[in-house]
Amino acid sequence: MMNETIGLLKQHRSIRKFTKDPVTAEQLDAILTAAQQASTSSNMQAYSVIGITDKELRSELAKLAGNQAYIEESSVFLVWCADLYRWEQAAKRHYDEEILSTTENFIIGTVDAALAAQNAAVAAESLGLGIVYIGGIRNQPEQISELLELPQHVYPVFGMCIGVPDQSPLDRPRLPRSAVYYENSYNTSTIDSNIDAYDETMSNYMRARSNGKAGTTWSEAMAAKAGPVRMHMRSFLQKQGFELE
Amino acid sequence: MMNETIGLLKQHRSIRKFTKDPVTAEQLDAILTAAQQASTSSNMQAYSVIGITDKELRSELAKLAGNQAYIEESSVFLVWCADLYRWEQAAKRHYDEEILSTTENFIIGTVDAALAAQNAAVAAESLGLGIVYIGGIRNQPEQISELLELPQHVYPVFGMCIGVPDQSPLDRPRLPRSAVYYENSYNTSTIDSNIDAYDETMSNYMRARSNGKAGTTWSEAMAAKAGPVRMHMRSFLQKQGFELE
Repeated sequence: MMNETIGLLKQHRSIRKFTKDPVTAEQLDAILTAAQQASTSSNMQAYSVIGITDKELRSELAKLAGNQAYIEESSVFLVWCADLYRWEQAAKRHYDEEILSTTENFIIGTVDAALAAQNAAVAAESLGLGIVYIGGIRNQPEQISELLELPQHVYPVFGMCIGVPDQSPLDRPRLPRSAVYYENSYNTSTIDSNIDAYDETMSNYMRARSNGKAGTTWSEAMAAKAGPVRMHMRSFLQKQGFELE
Repeated sequence: MMNETIGLLKQHRSIRKFTKDPVTAEQLDAILTAAQQASTSSNMQAYSVIGITDKELRSELAKLAGNQAYIEESSVFLVWCADLYRWEQAAKRHYDEEILSTTENFIIGTVDAALAAQNAAVAAESLGLGIVYIGGIRNQPEQISELLELPQHVYPVFGMCIGVPDQSPLDRPRLPRSAVYYENSYNTSTIDSNIDAYDETMSNYMRARSNGKAGTTWSEAMAAKAGPVRMHMRSFLQKQGFELE
């Protein structure tokens, strides 16, 4: 069950090293067109994209997002935002009461941004380009929102580097299918054995990738993420006007 | 700047009428493989998918999600969940302190579910199938979570119907590029004129679709969404253990 597109999706790897070759204006246009065609909740299109073309601004963002070299070096850097501001400006034309800033709309904006971004990622890869999502954009979202002059009810969900790949990383194995897909009801009883199996898979993969030096299991890697991370997100969102009512 | 995949992405329309032809097991397997290959935050894979194969359960879900016929009629119906439960089970093996339920992890789960789902959507469409996202899954999420036996820290973000299309809807125009894409900083000053332009576009489109009967503008349609909608989401999420710290 294979075709060109499914082959492409299966081949996805995050790219963190890019050549100096540019993404052309025509390529970026095709990528953004694909993004705009993604599904969106009730046609709200509750997202915006900021392309960072200014060199100094890119440098500042890279520092704020964790100082990874590829954020500065990729030809294109996009900041994907959940955006309820534009929708509100439209709705206000015909709605006189206060528009609430709800958890529901926060989810809609976050999902709309992600669906559009994933279409952009697929389009970019279909053109032979590589991409990586940058969650580090949420490291210091308040400063980033100020730099990008984001209005209330807009927040940066993640960044995305796009460029010509200068590496071809190994395929990273995923969880067993039975760990992520269930029929009719969630089944907690198989989780432990699936984690065992995936721990072994990932340990072997990490060992292969490091020439035998490190064999971190998945659960070890996940434990390293279990401490308090980005605890500012809630108060940041409130400052951006997301009251999550 | 066109290839098979970009052509496919540009062609996307939500499908709400399906033939009785089945999605085959091989097709579903290819769709789920594509989903699993999507980017995921730090390899957390913080999502799960529930395929609803039980006829009665499907019927119940359809009622809870807004009673749209296509939820019962589509060959495949998937419920995409943000899932921090599995990740916690893994992390706990090597982390002794309390694992906080943060806003950050809520965002990660929601985004991971959306990225995987969008890959599934693209894969399905590449096989000639049609899809529609079902936000109505959040109409009565508490009942749905009970029916699907979702553990704490798992919530249904949206559903997805997949099947053989039995309609070919018109291409729905999107906002002007300049309304969703900015360079270097958000620009609120162009929003009004972009809404004007899109109101006209959508009004013409709606008139064409209804043979001249209705010409609702975008801002009118958006105003219809401005009242309190799904105000239960926050308390539902708290019941599911999402404390959004």
